[in-house]
Amino acid sequence: MKPGRHYFTIRIYWEDTDAGGVVFFANYLKFFERARTEWLRDLGVSQEQWRLAGRAFVVSDTRVRYRLPARLDDELSIQTAVTQFGKASLQLNQQVWRDSTLLAEGEIRIGFVDILSFRPCRIPPDILSLIS
Amino acid sequence: MKPGRHYFTIRIYWEDTDAGGVVFFANYLKFFERARTEWLRDLGVSQEQWRLAGRAFVVSDTRVRYRLPARLDDELSIQTAVTQFGKASLQLNQQVWRDSTLLAEGEIRIGFVDILSFRPCRIPPDILSLIS
Amino acid sequence: MKPGRHYFTIRIYWEDTDAGGVVFFANYLKFFERARTEWLRDLGVSQEQWRLAGRAFVVSDTRVRYRLPARLDDELSIQTAVTQFGKASLQLNQQVWRDSTLLAEGEIRIGFVDILSFRPCRIPPDILSLIS
Amino acid sequence: MKPGRHYFTIRIYWEDTDAGGVVFFANYLKFFERARTEWLRDLGVSQEQWRLAGRAFVVSDTRVRYRLPARLDDELSIQTAVTQFGKASLQLNQQVWRDSTLLAEGEIRIGFVDILSFRPCRIPPDILSLIS
Repeated sequence: MKPGRHYFTIRIYWEDTDAGGVVFFANYLKFFERARTEWLRDLGVSQEQWRLAGRAFVVSDTRVRYRLPARLDDELSIQTAVTQFGKASLQLNQQVWRDSTLLAEGEIRIGFVDILSFRPCRIPPDILSLIS
Repeated sequence: MKPGRHYFTIRIYWEDTDAGGVVFFANYLKFFERARTEWLRDLGVSQEQWRLAGRAFVVSDTRVRYRLPARLDDELSIQTAVTQFGKASLQLNQQVWRDSTLLAEGEIRIGFVDILSFRPCRIPPDILSLIS
Repeated sequence: MKPGRHYFTIRIYWEDTDAGGVVFFANYLKFFERARTEWLRDLGVSQEQWRLAGRAFVVSDTRVRYRLPARLDDELSIQTAVTQFGKASLQLNQQVWRDSTLLAEGEIRIGFVDILSFRPCRIPPDILSLIS
Repeated sequence: MKPGRHYFTIRIYWEDTDAGGVVFFANYLKFFERARTEWLRDLGVSQEQWRLAGRAFVVSDTRVRYRLPARLDDELSIQTAVTQFGKASLQLNQQVWRDSTLLAEGEIRIGFVDILSFRPCRIPPDILSLIS
């Protein structure tokens, strides 16, 4: 049974914007990454401990649709839900909302890998049981 | 008739990497953007002049597949080709190569917009004639 | 009379780190900027409204001393205090703490400018009264 | 005898700018870092090889004065010169020029460290002989 949707709030700063007066498009992938990290943290998974043990979740595929731009000072809700999971990878749907307006939406595939070889590893059962 | 493939070389610096020891995945969208800018510049299109005139190309959709990681000091070739174009938008295929190894590949859709309203605008004929 | 010290908490994500396994040094300037923005917001100053009115605080001088590195997953407290102010500029002392350890410290000078000409402007009295 | 000034050219992209319409101030530290990397590369020093051997140059102190903003599409020359060197650290003066206009200037202190402990290490004689 998949867990419900995870919610994480971020604020837009000068560093996130570009000379078009809006948030630079590549930064939505950062926002999605922050939200995945907070989702894992809320489940009790420490990425820094796994990194020191030579394992990490890495991104293998991203798809992002940009609908409306975010702007300086915006407060955004990043919503995350697992949509598929296998032995070594997961797919998530992630959305960026400003109040009741959907600004951007993505599908992100992450895999669990050995950090030196970048070869896929089985997701440890204690992590898998938390997310599945 | 679509123009050929455009080539642009970048170098990986500390700023591009993360604590996994490799290039942070979101940064490939920056590399693709740099390459599109150089492609437009080589065609004679100045984005800063269009920005000052209230028009810009903005990204509406990105799809990126990450195959192998890039690392500090790598010299990468970013390859860009138009795959579709309409009156107000374009689709491009972009690839990241290290020597003869394909590291990442993306499909990027960009639209021409009014920079204040973010409403789609027709791509000016003199730009369209350069890229089509 | 100068106001007291302002406190703002940030979290370190993958995007903040580099291949040395620690936070990339330039990012401390981003953390300081976020903290200044939250300090202004807490005082009731909206930078986006001032930006749309053609005025902004811009950084004219930075000095940062790096003592110890921050790492992935760290929760840091950014402390901000005004140390000098004039008619068109301010100086702030900003510090990065992890628990009771000082990681980095900076002196940042910001000026109030016309956003088109970048010429200095007097800080509006209602802002100046809030920070002095 | 100190070596002469090193010159490195960079281009400004959308990613470098912010909603003020100019280059985001923290990014000048990135430009300085790229220039130091190219200076070391030109001397024959591979930072990635040193990183894999557990050693790196890290920044311990930065001072930057911002005079005039850079903008989208600008081509900038980053100039680098060693101003002091010791057994485990160096100081450099770095400048950002657009044609004959000085936009920003910094003094950057870097130290050679063990990448795990962040303790200072002697700069290897073969590097020191190249830069002194």
